[in-house]
Amino acid sequence: MVKKTTELKRILHSKALDFFLEAHNGLSAKIVEEAGFPGVWASGLSISASLGVRDNNEASWTQILEVVEFMNDNIKIPLLLDGDTGYGNFNNVRRLVKKLEQRDVAGVCIEDKLFPKQNSFINDERQLLTSAEEFVGKIKAAKDTQKDSDFCVVARTEGFIVDRSLEETLERCVMYSEAGADAILVHSKLSTPDQIIAFEKKWDKHCPIVIVPTSYAQTPTSVFEKLDISLILWANHLLRASILQMQRTASQIYHDHSTQNIDNLIVPMKEVFRLQNVEELKTAEEIYLP
Amino acid sequence: MVKKTTELKRILHSKALDFFLEAHNGLSAKIVEEAGFPGVWASGLSISASLGVRDNNEASWTQILEVVEFMNDNIKIPLLLDGDTGYGNFNNVRRLVKKLEQRDVAGVCIEDKLFPKQNSFINDERQLLTSAEEFVGKIKAAKDTQKDSDFCVVARTEGFIVDRSLEETLERCVMYSEAGADAILVHSKLSTPDQIIAFEKKWDKHCPIVIVPTSYAQTPTSVFEKLDISLILWANHLLRASILQMQRTASQIYHDHSTQNIDNLIVPMKEVFRLQNVEELKTAEEIYLP
Amino acid sequence: MVKKTTELKRILHSKALDFFLEAHNGLSAKIVEEAGFPGVWASGLSISASLGVRDNNEASWTQILEVVEFMNDNIKIPLLLDGDTGYGNFNNVRRLVKKLEQRDVAGVCIEDKLFPKQNSFINDERQLLTSAEEFVGKIKAAKDTQKDSDFCVVARTEGFIVDRSLEETLERCVMYSEAGADAILVHSKLSTPDQIIAFEKKWDKHCPIVIVPTSYAQTPTSVFEKLDISLILWANHLLRASILQMQRTASQIYHDHSTQNIDNLIVPMKEVFRLQNVEELKTAEEIYLP
Amino acid sequence: MVKKTTELKRILHSKALDFFLEAHNGLSAKIVEEAGFPGVWASGLSISASLGVRDNNEASWTQILEVVEFMNDNIKIPLLLDGDTGYGNFNNVRRLVKKLEQRDVAGVCIEDKLFPKQNSFINDERQLLTSAEEFVGKIKAAKDTQKDSDFCVVARTEGFIVDRSLEETLERCVMYSEAGADAILVHSKLSTPDQIIAFEKKWDKHCPIVIVPTSYAQTPTSVFEKLDISLILWANHLLRASILQMQRTASQIYHDHSTQNIDNLIVPMKEVFRLQNVEELKTAEEIYLP
Repeated sequence: MVKKTTELKRILHSKALDFFLEAHNGLSAKIVEEAGFPGVWASGLSISASLGVRDNNEASWTQILEVVEFMNDNIKIPLLLDGDTGYGNFNNVRRLVKKLEQRDVAGVCIEDKLFPKQNSFINDERQLLTSAEEFVGKIKAAKDTQKDSDFCVVARTEGFIVDRSLEETLERCVMYSEAGADAILVHSKLSTPDQIIAFEKKWDKHCPIVIVPTSYAQTPTSVFEKLDISLILWANHLLRASILQMQRTASQIYHDHSTQNIDNLIVPMKEVFRLQNVEELKTAEEIYLP
Repeated sequence: MVKKTTELKRILHSKALDFFLEAHNGLSAKIVEEAGFPGVWASGLSISASLGVRDNNEASWTQILEVVEFMNDNIKIPLLLDGDTGYGNFNNVRRLVKKLEQRDVAGVCIEDKLFPKQNSFINDERQLLTSAEEFVGKIKAAKDTQKDSDFCVVARTEGFIVDRSLEETLERCVMYSEAGADAILVHSKLSTPDQIIAFEKKWDKHCPIVIVPTSYAQTPTSVFEKLDISLILWANHLLRASILQMQRTASQIYHDHSTQNIDNLIVPMKEVFRLQNVEELKTAEEIYLP
Repeated sequence: MVKKTTELKRILHSKALDFFLEAHNGLSAKIVEEAGFPGVWASGLSISASLGVRDNNEASWTQILEVVEFMNDNIKIPLLLDGDTGYGNFNNVRRLVKKLEQRDVAGVCIEDKLFPKQNSFINDERQLLTSAEEFVGKIKAAKDTQKDSDFCVVARTEGFIVDRSLEETLERCVMYSEAGADAILVHSKLSTPDQIIAFEKKWDKHCPIVIVPTSYAQTPTSVFEKLDISLILWANHLLRASILQMQRTASQIYHDHSTQNIDNLIVPMKEVFRLQNVEELKTAEEIYLP
Repeated sequence: MVKKTTELKRILHSKALDFFLEAHNGLSAKIVEEAGFPGVWASGLSISASLGVRDNNEASWTQILEVVEFMNDNIKIPLLLDGDTGYGNFNNVRRLVKKLEQRDVAGVCIEDKLFPKQNSFINDERQLLTSAEEFVGKIKAAKDTQKDSDFCVVARTEGFIVDRSLEETLERCVMYSEAGADAILVHSKLSTPDQIIAFEKKWDKHCPIVIVPTSYAQTPTSVFEKLDISLILWANHLLRASILQMQRTASQIYHDHSTQNIDNLIVPMKEVFRLQNVEELKTAEEIYLP
């Protein structure tokens, strides 16, 4: 069987445009896999939101790690962790990579902001970048730590998020690529893909490009296909889907004082049991119980 | 402010029929609260399923505890934990109660089955009850451990689930009540409420009754109102709602290679931020950051 | 019974010089209590070292929290946590205080360095202070968060550790005191108490002073008694004691290929069982088991 | 480099009598390694005691797992985990093995008692064995789960502890061996090795034998060498050594109101830093920090 790391690396370097969908717990990761996606984006925002905290490193990195362990254990496709800033300095990054490899996680994305992080879509003049030099140190530390040469480190620049110039953002990304990053994630909060397009035009294929079309979600995918994008992350959509339906269902039950009228809003119990793979345990009980 | 424990006790003893809705993480707990429900049922099945494991104590009790801590921190209404069998013997129950009280959880429900547990809706001749005497010891241990006299211990009988007679089930529940249980949860897997009705007719108001109309969900609530039921737990519906919508959304995105057509399936980003209470942090930054 | 928080506050404000001893797990915390000390210093260095990691926030803050929970559950005397920098910014400090109060921890000490921290006794030009303003924000955030008015926040200045002047260090500490700190911990790495003495002479009893005589351990306690010191932390001695004896014992057993000759190096099994309070469980089994 | 699992398997099958020493956290594991031992026994009793709880599954299995992860990360020699009963049924054993392999733990020992366990040296008529058939199911489940064929499953019989006959104990162990156990641990609470000797005489080398000479510690090792024992576990001695010295040191400091007179009881700070490998971080900072 192909290793998850190897599969992620293959996807990043393949000519085709690929798509990963967000998940935030073991259940949603399974749903991503069953839908046909070749990989899971373990979003920091989504994991935080589902835990009930903010995307500001309110949950500790080991609490995130535990969520990711449940997620990765539940799928056969590769998982790419949104590792925020690496949760500290280069030394924290080293520990993170070590722990992720132990848990068979395929790769991690780290970003060039300061710990504790601020979500990229929240307007805040306090969104600050770390120095390119410090971030290069983190990338090198990650790459030197990994034991499996296929483990992937994706370097995410928040240059555009904090209104740095195209030149500086490009310069940073070249440095990140030369430091060993397996791919560059270029983030933008515009409602059009203009920054991404401008970046791509100047980018000399140093390494694959990953994008997150959240704010520019209305851009047709054909636009991205013409660009030399390697991977698109649909970064928060299962979380947002679950919120809509849970709110709708809670409201309906509350007003009806009953669950009589919600069968069309929910899956049957047997679908829950199928997703939990109850059958496998029944079979195992036949084998292992007296 | 009324303590969560006091509020749960009040609900159990009030004459009105009340309803709690299931939640499985901090986010869904918040949605239950916002919908207007007076309390949250932290379902073992739902928590397990959302983590990506089975409802057979595959997650450790401290992993469940961590989920519950995130949930309870995110709401002001009381949370009742589905504590399975108490995760071992009376001594494990004592530790559980201690840990729940530290985290300000209002109450716990324990059931008269053996560890590790099997979900009540899975047909399995291995569904086994513990002795009434052992379970009475667990209830007493829980009640003797709690420091806050309003912390609630709900004793759940699985008598009907394993096809014990009405007489035995009643006898067990009288013992549980006399041992100090604050309420009795009578579970049934029939598609009609017949067992519940039969039980209620013979039950002499020793203590409040809680039910879980999952298999008999089509019963009109008016039926329950005529019975002397204290609390109904809608035990797994937010989980099942989230699964439906996540599957639908994943499928749509996968086939479209785009998120252009799913705006009606998801909430906007700003609703995520509202649920995370991003505003509070902005305000706090004004106060505490230089 | 007096609350742990109230007892810690009393100790800080009492005229007498008090002493806390370091502990790093539930067992050593119990030993500190049994020896007669009125409180436990949960040292970040010691906890890290016992876990097998460095004092550089290699363990996550929730991993430290779990250690502290085991420690505090095992003692009746107050525990003061060495909370490093608060593990991030003011918002992380808020979460920390909330979690500590839930677990009935009496107080926390935070220091005016940058996350991730560097141990104070390691020579490193990278030992950096945070701005006084940012640290004041952390202290205020902690004090505003606590629900129990007796929960104690000790502000630790590393001014002398990074060779700042007496004037700046004093000025910082006045700010910390005015921001609400319940006590000031003045740290020094000199082999004499000169910096402490100089500080005390200028300190106008804004709030109690705590010291950590590790490097100046040879100073007679009478010197400290003449100064207006409130509390001395013996900050790492049980860890260092355990290392000596474990190394000695391991070496002896290794060379002897036997444990025949080490009875004088170890306690008997029954002392282990006594420390674990095995008797209480036996008594409880009589009550709660059939 | 030889894998830890392979090394453990080699040790179990080597003709020489080998010795593992107990450790209970990352620090003590390192001390065992530095003393020259070829492996670490991660004792359930010691880990529980150091956490401050009892050896009755008061700590959850994931809390034990976290301790073991810190321990194993800190050593290059193999670690054998005292996995109690496997923390539930065969399915819990499967999860345990999966989690241990992820963390690169070399092997696990499980015992034929009921969950929650009781320490073997505590006299209690409630010490109960599970059926041989159920335990065989656990062993098979463990062996079928492991991905690395060298991961070791040691089956521990408590037959002698609960006063079963030599015949039954032997019969059980043959079943355990045939089910795939990599070694058999025969436990005894007598003050002489008589039960071990009697067992060995009848044991037909189905698989290697491991013993734990705690109660019969005064037996000369030459006695064991004549028997065909594969591995001796010195099962709790570092814990007991640390208790003696911590108690002594705490008492001395308490009575002296000073640490002036305890230099002979403790290691210097620099030995703590050496054990934490502070040097490695300094070197890494040169490489990775700007």
